[in-house]
Formats: sequence, structure tokens, C-alpha cells
Amino acid sequence: MRAVFMHGEKDIRVEETPDPVLATGPEASGRDAIVRVVASCVCGSDLWGYRGVRQADGARPMGHEFVGVVEAIGDAVATVKVGDFVIAPFYVCCNTCLNCRNGFSTSCLNGGWWGGEVKGEGRADAGQSERVRVPLADGTLVVVPGGEPDPALIPGLLTLSDVMCTGHHAALSAGVTAGSTVAVVGDGAVGLSAVIAAKRLGAARIVAMSRHESRQKLAVEFGATDVVPERGEEGIAKLKEMFDGIGPDIVLECVGTKESMDQALRSARPGGQVGFVGVPAGGPELPVGQMFSSNVGVRGGVAPVRGYIEELLPEVLDGRIQPGKVFDLELPLSGAAEAYAAMDERRAVKVLLRP
Amino acid sequence: MRAVFMHGEKDIRVEETPDPVLATGPEASGRDAIVRVVASCVCGSDLWGYRGVRQADGARPMGHEFVGVVEAIGDAVATVKVGDFVIAPFYVCCNTCLNCRNGFSTSCLNGGWWGGEVKGEGRADAGQSERVRVPLADGTLVVVPGGEPDPALIPGLLTLSDVMCTGHHAALSAGVTAGSTVAVVGDGAVGLSAVIAAKRLGAARIVAMSRHESRQKLAVEFGATDVVPERGEEGIAKLKEMFDGIGPDIVLECVGTKESMDQALRSARPGGQVGFVGVPAGGPELPVGQMFSSNVGVRGGVAPVRGYIEELLPEVLDGRIQPGKVFDLELPLSGAAEAYAAMDERRAVKVLLRP
Repeated sequence: MRAVFMHGEKDIRVEETPDPVLATGPEASGRDAIVRVVASCVCGSDLWGYRGVRQADGARPMGHEFVGVVEAIGDAVATVKVGDFVIAPFYVCCNTCLNCRNGFSTSCLNGGWWGGEVKGEGRADAGQSERVRVPLADGTLVVVPGGEPDPALIPGLLTLSDVMCTGHHAALSAGVTAGSTVAVVGDGAVGLSAVIAAKRLGAARIVAMSRHESRQKLAVEFGATDVVPERGEEGIAKLKEMFDGIGPDIVLECVGTKESMDQALRSARPGGQVGFVGVPAGGPELPVGQMFSSNVGVRGGVAPVRGYIEELLPEVLDGRIQPGKVFDLELPLSGAAEAYAAMDERRAVKVLLRP
Repeated sequence: MRAVFMHGEKDIRVEETPDPVLATGPEASGRDAIVRVVASCVCGSDLWGYRGVRQADGARPMGHEFVGVVEAIGDAVATVKVGDFVIAPFYVCCNTCLNCRNGFSTSCLNGGWWGGEVKGEGRADAGQSERVRVPLADGTLVVVPGGEPDPALIPGLLTLSDVMCTGHHAALSAGVTAGSTVAVVGDGAVGLSAVIAAKRLGAARIVAMSRHESRQKLAVEFGATDVVPERGEEGIAKLKEMFDGIGPDIVLECVGTKESMDQALRSARPGGQVGFVGVPAGGPELPVGQMFSSNVGVRGGVAPVRGYIEELLPEVLDGRIQPGKVFDLELPLSGAAEAYAAMDERRAVKVLLRP
């Protein structure tokens, strides 16, 4: 089968690799499944490696967001069945350990990452490929009821793998509730999803920080009440001015740079909250003295999306939320190199890949 | 009158200074009051200056926690009356601006600090003295119902100026609720108050991190269910072990050093929360990458105690909570130098001063 590998900075290749098979032998747990990928996509976080911000060591299999059809299951798989249409969160988890039960399946005691080893369960394949071996299939995969969905719904379902649920995590972490005033820093797919999430949770006012016309338009369509193109000091001043001189209750940080986090922290009102889901690139540290004097809290991180998929799925299926609109380019898997380039050059918000 | 001044590292002097008077003249707002101090005390944060960690420029008037009797009020004072017994929070605030109404009176748009200037209201005196001019008296002071209280209640009432309410803020910021598992880092007056606060809010298990026998004993009296003397790596390992290998839901950071914050952050379970109220000494920064992967949030800061006094006051008055026990030494104001030395050398948890 074909799969996408990153060989180094701006070096994306689609290569032949053996078809995955269920684990066999005395060590096999029988808890795996083989999924035929119907759609996968490129993540903003993939770009850190693509841009050389993070060093790649050797060819790295790519992709951690995918939906598809189950083709085979191990002997011990109990809930997922052959033929099921499934959504894979961007990581592997058991969904039964204490951290999973606490709602933080990204810290699963038994899980792992796509493209890496999972303790005692062998290797998990990556998602930008034709087929994936999924360890801990019952824990990891979420079945879409009703079999293979309308093709028009595929993009929306695919966002539940990561970006829509990650935007939701930003909003939940920051405590968005009915009446909250919210600013969203970042107009990528996660930032736009955070607008949907804030709207769902009843925010009274949602400011999208964006200077790109097409993204501004989508943000407004998703529920943003205001758009602020200014950044940095000017963006902070603008937000303070819009909210009684003190700033909004909540800022959702959906970028991950030092600048964006600084802007978020300094925009929130005293006693406000920053929900952050941008992967911290290069490790900006947080100014605890500033947090101390302003009482602005910071909460968030790698989103435990497995626990959110079931909640958001019905709203995607009936069209109440349409996060699939963040995909503005669709390519065959063979066009993966162009998919990365388009996102890197900001010609596309998010690219869907169909094997 | 006499008042306490810090002249430099380990140089505390009790000096004669003019008696404060109500502001007069065309600029005077009439919103001030003169309070005769009945009791004041030394704060752990005063020790940073005492130890030379923070540079003092010139003689600094000391003290931001006091209770006393109102002796005079300005023309515009409406709620506070002459003869009222009052509790002063550790800052001056209007209690009417947007930040005050949001519950963050430490970010009052019109307030200030004891010993410093308050915009348009003149200078606020400091609390380790015989008398204090209090700007914005209606906003700042909380009247104790029933006139001058039983002398045995004075220490408990005095803790509402700062430490008891600050411990409460740590617990609230971290979201302590019925059933929470909580560890408290720091066994000073604030840490011990945080134990009371966690208990009040219904925590199921409260671990006091302390290696001092007398403080351990007080922590248990206040509601700690466990005591852990280990610190750093050993303390973290112990906490993880006690809570199913993952750590407690919540850690209350009541010290303010880089080490204590590191310990707090790394002890909480994935998705847990650190409530912090230790004044950050020397500005340790927070490791955002670690927070990202663990989803441990950080919230807290300078405690908006003005908004908590009325809630906690009845429980101090009827003895349900007895935070006054954190005072283990009482000295006359003239003994201020010894009060600082005793706290610095950890011979006392907290020292009460009576003018």
C-alpha cells in the first residue's frame, strides 16, 4: 500500500510500504483492527517538522487524523465490528484506565501515538496511508452509527479526529459557558473550530483574531461576533477597548508560539482564563509573575479528543455544526507533498487527503 | 505614633511618625477613615525584603494585615461608622469597579497598596503601626457585626486580612470541591489556611507536605488526612504512589519558589489543577510544554480577599474554623524586629503584633 513519509525539511514522499496485518503469535493481544482509510488530513502540528522547527530523525510515517472502514479485527475486539465506519482520535488509548476515565485519555496509561510503538501491542501505523493497523481498537475507535455516511459528511467527521475536538478542549479548559466573552487567537483549523465550540457553549461574544479575509468569513459563519485583524500590542489594546477597558473573560490560544501565548495572557481580563491548545513550539515559558498579579489562569494542552467525539458526533451528523468547512482543499494521497506545501504557504487552511 | 519601617536587609525599626489625619482641602474626596490598630502581623511575603531577595529603596513602612476600630471618617463615608470594629484586606479597593464586581478586587481600577499612593486619594498608611489612614474606607473595610469582639477571636479575624482568605483563594482557583483529592505544598500560615479551605470545600483527602512537627500537628487539626514530609522528587513520588500512581486531583502551591511550583506541577494528576498563591520569588517561569502534555492547569495569584471576608467571617466568629491558631507568637509592636527574626528563622509560623 501507499503511505506518506517525511524524510526531512520540506521533503514529503508517498512510498510503497507493506500492507498492515493483525498481530499474530503468542504475544498478540488480539485487540487490534485493520482500518481502510477513507479520508485523512494534514495537521498544523505536522508543519513544525516540515519547516524544520523540529528535527526529524529518518523517514517518519505521517498522519494522525483519519476515518475509515474496519476490514479486520483481532480475536479480543468486542465492540468494533468489520464493516463499521470509524473515527480515530489522534492517538491510541485503552479508554478504561484511570486517566482515560478521568477524561484525559491523552495520558492513557496503555496508549501511544500513531506511527509509534504501543506498549505490549506493537506498532500503530500512521494515518496518511491506505490502511492502518489500530492497536487497542475498542478503546481507540469511535463507531459512526448507521454505516458508511453520506460522503458530504466525511470532512466534518474527520475533524472529530482532532481539530474540532481540540477547539472544544480549548473552550472547555477555559470554562466557556453561557454569557462568556471570548477571544480566539489563531485562525487555523483549530482556532476556527474553537469559534464553533465557544458558540455551542453559549458564549455571548466571540472575537476572531484574524487578518485573512477567507478565514474571517468562515469565523463569522461559525459564530464569531467580531473580527480583529490587529496582533500583538495593537491586538491587546483593541481587545481591552472592546471589553470595558479590561479585556474578555476568556482567550483561547490556538497557535502555540511565544507571541500568541503572550498576546492571550495579556488580553484576558483580571481573573480571566486562557485555554491553550496550540502545540508549544520551541517551549515558550509562562510568566508566572504576570499570571500572579493578574490572576489569569492557564489551562489546556493536548486535547483528550476520544472523550469528546461521542458528544459532538450527533451535531456533525445532523448538520448543527459544520466543522468540515475548515477543509478548503482536497487532494488524492499521491498529492501529499502539495498538501503540505499548500498549508505551509497558507494557501489552504486544512487539506483533506483521499487514498 | 509608632510604626514599623524596614531600612534594609534584616533592619527592622519601630519609629515615631506623625499621627495620620483625614485628608482635607478641595482635593479631598472625603472617602477615608482613621483606624486605631488593635492587631497587625508579619507576612511571609515581608520576609523576601527582609532577606534581601527584594531590594528595599529607603525606609519602607511595613504591614498590610490589620484589624482595628474606626476613630474618624471622612464626609463621604457611608457604610463604615466611628466605633466599628473592622478587618482590612491586604490592599485598598473601591469594591464597585468592574474588576471588583468580577471578584478580582486585587485588580481594582481605583485601589492601591498599604504604604503606597492611591490614585486621587492620597497615601495609604501601612498596618504595622498604631493608626492607619484608610482611603476608600467603604470599599476597603469590612465591619465585624456586634462591635469589638471577644479578644480570643482577634487572631482569627486578623487572618481574614490575608492568610485565611489567601488559602481559600488557592483552593477556589484550583476548583476544590466535594470529593477532591488535594495536596498542599507549603506549611506556612497560608499553606495551613489552605488546608482549612480545602476541608471546608469538601475535599475527600488532604495531604499536608510538611516536615515540621508542630506544623504537621496543626495541619492535621485543621483537616489534613495525611502528612508527607518528603520534598522534591521524593515528595512527587510519594504523592503519585498515594494516589493510584497518577497523583492527586489538585495541588495548592503556597510557597512561591521555583522548586515548590515545580513540585506542585509535577505532582498533580493528568488533567489536574494547581492553585497557586505563593508570591513568585525571583520569577520562576512555568514550563508550558510540560503543562501541555499533562493538561495540568495553573490558576491563582494575589488573592482578592476583600470578596471572601464576608463569607468566612461567620465561621470565624462561631468557631467553625479557627485559623487564628496559625499565630504561635504574640509580641508588642515594639518587638517587631524580633517578630521578623522569629519568622525568618522559622521559630514562629506567624507573629501577631499588638500596638
